Parts: sequence; C-alpha cells; structure tokens
Amino acid sequence: MGIDTYRENVVYLHRECGVVRAEGFQALAKVDLSADGNERSISAVINVVDDERIVGPGEIGLSEQAFEQLGAPEGTAVAIAHAEPPASIQSLRRKIGGERLMRDEWFAMVRDIAQRRYSKVELAAFVVATSQFELDRDEVAYLTEAMTDAGRKLDWHERPVVDKHCIGGIPGNRTSMLVVPIVAAHGMLIPKTSSRAITSPAGTADTMEVLAQVDLDFARLSEIARSLRGCLAWGGVAQLSPADDVLISVERPLAIDSPGQMVASILSKKCAAGSTHMVLDIPVGPTAKVRSMPEAQRLKKLFEYVARHIGLMLEAVITDGRQPIGNGIGPVLEARDVMQVLNIDPAGPVDLRQKALRLAGRVIEFDPDVRGGDGFPIARDILDSGRALSKMNEIIDAQGRRPAPLPLGRLALEVCAEATGTVVGIDNLQLATIARLAGAPKVKGAGIDLFRKLGDQVRQGEPLYRVYADYPADLEFATRLSKRSSGYSIGEAAALPHAFVEF
Amino acid sequence: MGIDTYRENVVYLHRECGVVRAEGFQALAKVDLSADGNERSISAVINVVDDERIVGPGEIGLSEQAFEQLGAPEGTAVAIAHAEPPASIQSLRRKIGGERLMRDEWFAMVRDIAQRRYSKVELAAFVVATSQFELDRDEVAYLTEAMTDAGRKLDWHERPVVDKHCIGGIPGNRTSMLVVPIVAAHGMLIPKTSSRAITSPAGTADTMEVLAQVDLDFARLSEIARSLRGCLAWGGVAQLSPADDVLISVERPLAIDSPGQMVASILSKKCAAGSTHMVLDIPVGPTAKVRSMPEAQRLKKLFEYVARHIGLMLEAVITDGRQPIGNGIGPVLEARDVMQVLNIDPAGPVDLRQKALRLAGRVIEFDPDVRGGDGFPIARDILDSGRALSKMNEIIDAQGRRPAPLPLGRLALEVCAEATGTVVGIDNLQLATIARLAGAPKVKGAGIDLFRKLGDQVRQGEPLYRVYADYPADLEFATRLSKRSSGYSIGEAAALPHAFVEF
Repeated sequence: MGIDTYRENVVYLHRECGVVRAEGFQALAKVDLSADGNERSISAVINVVDDERIVGPGEIGLSEQAFEQLGAPEGTAVAIAHAEPPASIQSLRRKIGGERLMRDEWFAMVRDIAQRRYSKVELAAFVVATSQFELDRDEVAYLTEAMTDAGRKLDWHERPVVDKHCIGGIPGNRTSMLVVPIVAAHGMLIPKTSSRAITSPAGTADTMEVLAQVDLDFARLSEIARSLRGCLAWGGVAQLSPADDVLISVERPLAIDSPGQMVASILSKKCAAGSTHMVLDIPVGPTAKVRSMPEAQRLKKLFEYVARHIGLMLEAVITDGRQPIGNGIGPVLEARDVMQVLNIDPAGPVDLRQKALRLAGRVIEFDPDVRGGDGFPIARDILDSGRALSKMNEIIDAQGRRPAPLPLGRLALEVCAEATGTVVGIDNLQLATIARLAGAPKVKGAGIDLFRKLGDQVRQGEPLYRVYADYPADLEFATRLSKRSSGYSIGEAAALPHAFVEF
Repeated sequence: MGIDTYRENVVYLHRECGVVRAEGFQALAKVDLSADGNERSISAVINVVDDERIVGPGEIGLSEQAFEQLGAPEGTAVAIAHAEPPASIQSLRRKIGGERLMRDEWFAMVRDIAQRRYSKVELAAFVVATSQFELDRDEVAYLTEAMTDAGRKLDWHERPVVDKHCIGGIPGNRTSMLVVPIVAAHGMLIPKTSSRAITSPAGTADTMEVLAQVDLDFARLSEIARSLRGCLAWGGVAQLSPADDVLISVERPLAIDSPGQMVASILSKKCAAGSTHMVLDIPVGPTAKVRSMPEAQRLKKLFEYVARHIGLMLEAVITDGRQPIGNGIGPVLEARDVMQVLNIDPAGPVDLRQKALRLAGRVIEFDPDVRGGDGFPIARDILDSGRALSKMNEIIDAQGRRPAPLPLGRLALEVCAEATGTVVGIDNLQLATIARLAGAPKVKGAGIDLFRKLGDQVRQGEPLYRVYADYPADLEFATRLSKRSSGYSIGEAAALPHAFVEF
C-alpha cells in the first residue's frame, strides 16, 4: 500500500469484501495472513477501507512493514483468518493483574513480541504492566534472558570483549567516542555498537555519523573491530534484541523507562553483542534519570544481580549527573568536543576528558595484567601521547570518513543571563528539549553550545549559551521554550549543590 | 481517505511532503490539525505514505473519523503542527508510577480521553495503569464523576427513574427484557438503554433487535419511555459516556475489566442516563466474572460507595452465576426464552423466570408505596396475568416490530455427553466462546441451545446442547472448540457445587 505504519502491521480490507462481511471482521481486529505456497504467516490489525481506489472488495492491502514481512510479490493469493491471540497474552493478563510470572512465561511473551504478534495496544499494556515496580529481580533476569534469546547472539571467540554504557539522560555525555579509541589502543577488543537518539538530542551513533559512516553491515563491522580492536557503529543492523526494538516503539511515545525495563534492555543488548565485561555509567543529579543516591544504589544492585545471572562481568559506577558533560549538545557540537579532547586542544572540555579517562581506566582494569588503580594513568598516557587520536582516525577511515565536515546550523541565537551571580543549576531536561526543538539530532548542526557551567560566575546580559538551528520554525520553537526557562539558575555560590559522587 | 481506523485518528502524509521533512515528523508521531477558518483542532497519529496515488506531497489524507471530527470539506487548507501532548499525560505518568491522583486530575484525563486526545498507546496505558488494584474507592468515585461529566446527562423530570443492570459474564442472562415490561406495567419509569455484546455472544440490545428496532434517536426513545413507562433500546445513540466508549476500544482487545473500571463505566452511564434508583446483579460462580463471595462482597461495597458519592440509590444483589441462565445462548435463542417466559409457556426456562421476577421485585420495592418483601408477588402477578406480555408488545410496536421473525442458523450440530452421570459443571466462558465462534451475535440465529443444566441426569451419547450457525467455517470453528472441551462436566451428584447465593 505504500503506507508506513511504523512497527504495527496493518491490513487494509474493503468494507464490502466478502471476508469482512462473512467473518464479521471489525476495524482493529487482528488477523493471520499467509501467502499461497508460503509457510510463514504474519499477523496484522485491520483497517476497513470504503474507497475502491485504495483497495477493492476481494483485494487486500498491506502496510509497508507487513508487506515486507509476508515476503510475497504483489498479486499473490492470500489466506486470511481470525488471529488466535498469541498464547502468551494469558501471561500478560496475569502480569496486569499483578502476579509474578515464571521464566517460561517471560520467554513466551518476549518471543511473541519479537515476532510482532502483539498489537500496539498489547505492547503498551506490556510496557505499563512491567513498569509498575512489580518485577522482582528474578523476573528482570528472566526478561533479560528472554530478550537476549529472541535475537541473534554474536560470538567473538575471545575474552574479554569489553563495553561501556551509560543509562542516559545527560546531554553531551559522549564518553564512548573517547573510551573506545583509548581502550582499543590499549589492545582490548571493544566492538561498540550504539543506538541513535530516542528522546535525547544526540546518541553516540548520531554523533559518530558526523565523522564517519555508522550503518555498516555486520560483516564489515566485525572485520573492522577485529583488525582495529574497536569500532563505533550503529547497532540497529545487527538485529541483536528485536524484542527491545519493538518495545521501544511504545516506550518512546509513553516516555516510560522503568528500572526493570532499563536493565533488561541494556543487558540483553550487551549480552547479545557478545560482551563479556562492561562498565556502566549511572549519572545522578537533580535533573538526571536517577535523582538520589539510594535510588542509584538500588539500580546498581539490580544491574549487578541480573548481570551475574546472565554471566556478564559488570562494574557499575555512579557519576556526577548535575549538568551536561562537555560544552556541545547536538551531533556536530558533541563531535567537536570529542575531537578537541582527542587533539589535546586546551579549548576542549575538561569534564568530558576527565570522565572519559576515568571510565576508560575502569575498562582497562578488566585486563588481567593491569593492577587495580593503574587504569586511569594508562588511559591518560594513551590519550596524551596521541595514540587515542591515531586509533580514532583509523576507525573513522575504516568505517568510511565523511568527505567534508558538517557545518553548524545556519541560524543562531544567544541566551543571556538575567542576573549576576554564580551558575548554581543547569537543567539537563530543559536543555535537551531546547536542543531537540532546535532540530537535533535530525539536523546534525543543530543544538546548543554552552558557555557557562556549574560554579561559573556570570554577569547579567552575558551569554549563557548559543542555540543553533537550520530552520526558522525550529529556532522559533527553541527560543520560545528558552524564554519560558533558560534551564540555568543563577544564585549565590553557597547554593551550588555538591556533587553526589566523585569517582 | 475512506479508511476506517476505528477510534484512532490517523493522518496520512507523503514521505516527501515538505512538512514531514522540515519538522522531522515520524510515523506514529502525533500532530494537531486545524482547518482554515475553523476554531476546532483535532489531534491525529501520522502514517507515512510512499505512494502518490494515495496522497501526494503537499496533501494530507484523514481517516474517516478524523475527517468527520475536523468537519471541513475536501480541499480545505489545513495547518499542521507537532501536537503538544495533552496536559493530563503528566497525571497518567504519575498513575503509571503508582501514585494516587486528585479529583481534578481524573477530570482532566477523562476530558482529554473523551475528546480523543489520547493515542491508542496512551489509552492502553491508562487502562492498564488504572486496572492494577491501585485505585482506592475515592479515585473510582472521581473517575465515575469525571466520566459522567464528559458527556450529556439526561433529566427525566421525575423520580424515581429506575434501572436494572448486570455486571455480565453469564450467557443467556436476559432478565432485563423481562424486568422492563414488568416494572413498566407496574407504572414505574424504566427507560432502559443497553449495549451490544462486547465480548459475549449477545447483549440485551442484540437480543431485543431480534424482535424490534433498537437504534432509536433520542427524541423517539424518550417519547416511548414517557408514554409506555419503559423501553429497551440501544444506548449508543445517546452519547452518554463518550469517554467510556473510547476506553472500551482498548479494553476489548485487552480483555481487561478491573473492578474500578467496571464500577466507573456502569455507574457513569446510569447516572448520565438520568437513573435515580438501580438494582445491580452480581453473579458469582466458578466461571463467572466474580468467583468467590469475598470478592463479590468487596465489589458490592465499592459499587455502593461510589453510587452514594454520585447520589444514586443502589441495591446490589449477589446471584447464582454457576451456569448460563435460560436455555438459549445467542440473540434469536435468547429472544425465544424471553418470549416463552412472557407467554407463560410451560416450555420456558424456569431459572430465567425466577431470576427476572426476583430482580423485578427488588426494583418495584423502590416504589415508596410497596412494602419490603411485596415486590416479588407483585411482579409475579404482573407476569402471570399477561400484563407484562402486553407491555412488551406495546414496547415492540412502538420501537418498530421486526416484520418477519428471524430464523435460527441454517447449520446445526449436537454435542453429546461422553459419560453417564449428573451434570456437575457448565463452563460459562467455554459456552460463550463456542457461541461466538458459531457467529453470535453478528449472526443473530447463531448460538447454542442447552438441553441439560446443573443437576440434570444424562446418559452417555445423549445430546447436551445444539450449536447453530449460518456459515460452514463458523460451525467448523465452534465444533473444533467444543471437541477440545464441551464445557460440561459430568460426575456424581455429590460433586454438584452448592449455589453461592439464593436470593
């Protein structure tokens, strides 16, 4: 039909179609479809069509994804039947009722989800029912195992295979693009795959794409990782946790990100990617995803428990999440920060450098030959000697260097301090939203360049940050929001919140 | 566009449309649309189209309901913008997080739901989040008030206006079609509106439709009720609880029916319909909606509390829900049972007669001139004297008698006992599902005719019931299921479960 209904399969049937009438099909009912001479069947939701120019009686139309999944050419005869609801819906109903589910029930639900047998409504029910603090840690472990099991699993045939991941929520936090070249230069295998931004102004894949190609096919990605010991690619190609991809399609509009789902989503992807050792970054701050130390500790314990269950060595570190990391927010600006740090440019952001070195140091300590505490100086030496920069250039060239640098947004606007004093608060969420309205990550050059960070002195009228955009409407939206609140609090130095952590 | 997407507004935009590209619209994103020179705006979910024959760049297409809601002719210029999520989504997120919500939050959520501002995914989230036993009774009361408030409210300008309702789950339980003529013949105003079947093989509206027209416009319905003191119409026309209609569209596929939602849904509709007094039937049995006395008592207390809160006089009676009521399941067969009872036909089902008389008696006792305990004999006298039958005929004629009786299904199949003994169990759910597969309620003559009830003796090979259908495929489906399990348990008389209640 040439209609993209995102992750939901839709079948278009004419209202006067014999099948619709005889079987009493209704809009939104689910049916199973199988093409003549084809084993595979798909399930889809019905939309009823009253216009013969779209589909006539006796014809069916499919949304793009459904057509692709059915895998039969146009004009094929198709059998259609009331869908038996997936058997695991019984388990979903029990979960909605607040019951604890067994391991095989989690496996059955996740398998049905990965095979797209759940409707959007059922998916939303799954996400809400499993987000209500009702999952105990064993259930999270089962969910994680099941999500891993539902996709392909990579085997690198060596150990350790290391990784570094952040739970998200902090704009500009592009440490992976520094940790990977440092760790790979140390000689450890770190085949990093990342997502694109879901709700943030840039994901690692979006930012790396400013410098190099990221959507490599899996053979190429694996060849690069083996020869260079590292890569920085988009993870979507690898089909690592298909259930997670399906669930994200409803988590995104609902903005739900519960601890259980977060743990299962992250660890299942890492396990499927063949990682054996991982450092996890949990930022804490008043506008971070995790807002208190007790909450951070609970989340850390849950990650540790599930990681042990699936045989992944995990070091979870709680970090300072009070403000954005680095100066840039948005793909081009964040790539600039990263390259400044790699080039030992004195203008480069110190906080990004320090955090990346500390995380890289912890990863390097997974090396059995490195003594506890030696990781940081090793990482610093690799960075300061220019070996990290060389490694990054090798990775960029191997993945496919972008021929010309991407420009910043054509339009810009400065947001200035309304008072004189000390910067005592920077709202991660507000700045992320402003950057997104400005066009990031879709418009790579859009975003925010921060001129002041926590603790800095500022005078009334001095610029706090500059917003970049490509389209007037985007700049207008972003400006309107920044006028409602700049995201900065100016006050007395004593009001500066202490960092929750220092690691 | 001539596409019926049921209750969800969909806007079709071409992938190359300037708006889609500039604003970075994605499939499933929500937008606000307003027609030139029109105050009203609607929100809709995007489907992206790749075929210019469906919509071209620079055009938009709307699903049927969205087109109707926007209310502008084809060719009108339309403005489109990222939808601000409805403000009440914040409250929904808090509910998902397990928090207790205030009265004004319930009102805001229900208003947005009634105005179709929630996407299907958000609706599913609402239904699940409010189904998890997290609503305390005040929250249920607020939800009920809010649902009443969101639609129109009828005022009959007299008291009492009585009603009778069952929470559902028992096939064949067509007491309303007896209670209404009895109570109306007694002279009390009982303007009964009913739903069509949602998940059952027949609703009261489906069954009444076998005898008379039920989709009357409101003026006609009200005229009939005033002159005859009663009617038996379909409630859909009256727009009484629009939020409930929207919620049902996701409750149905999820088969969720939590206590809080049940109470709010039933009482908001009754309150909006102008009822002042109501008898509520709560059947209890091993395969009923309510399966134990403690559960029934809890539900009764919740109904009573919320009814008092909204000023409705409510009598909740707990009844025997161990098996179907009457002999027929499906519209034509249930209408036959009802007419047999009205005709004092000795072949008519005694259980249906008894239950209807007891319920009608309780309704009649709302009459201040009737002493407690006198309702039953009054009802029996009205039925046995033929006055109930005359009243029913008046109502049928006023609503529009169906010219020719509807036939039973053309195809039939008998299901026989596999052993000799006593019928000790009849599974309400299994029989309802078999009847639905046979085609009920869509095919009015489809369904099941029961030959044996609890406590009856049966010999191996004797028929337990006959399944009727119109289409071979339907009969095939129903037969396959009845072979897996007939729904009947045959055993020793001692194994017969005692009725939970006798009223």
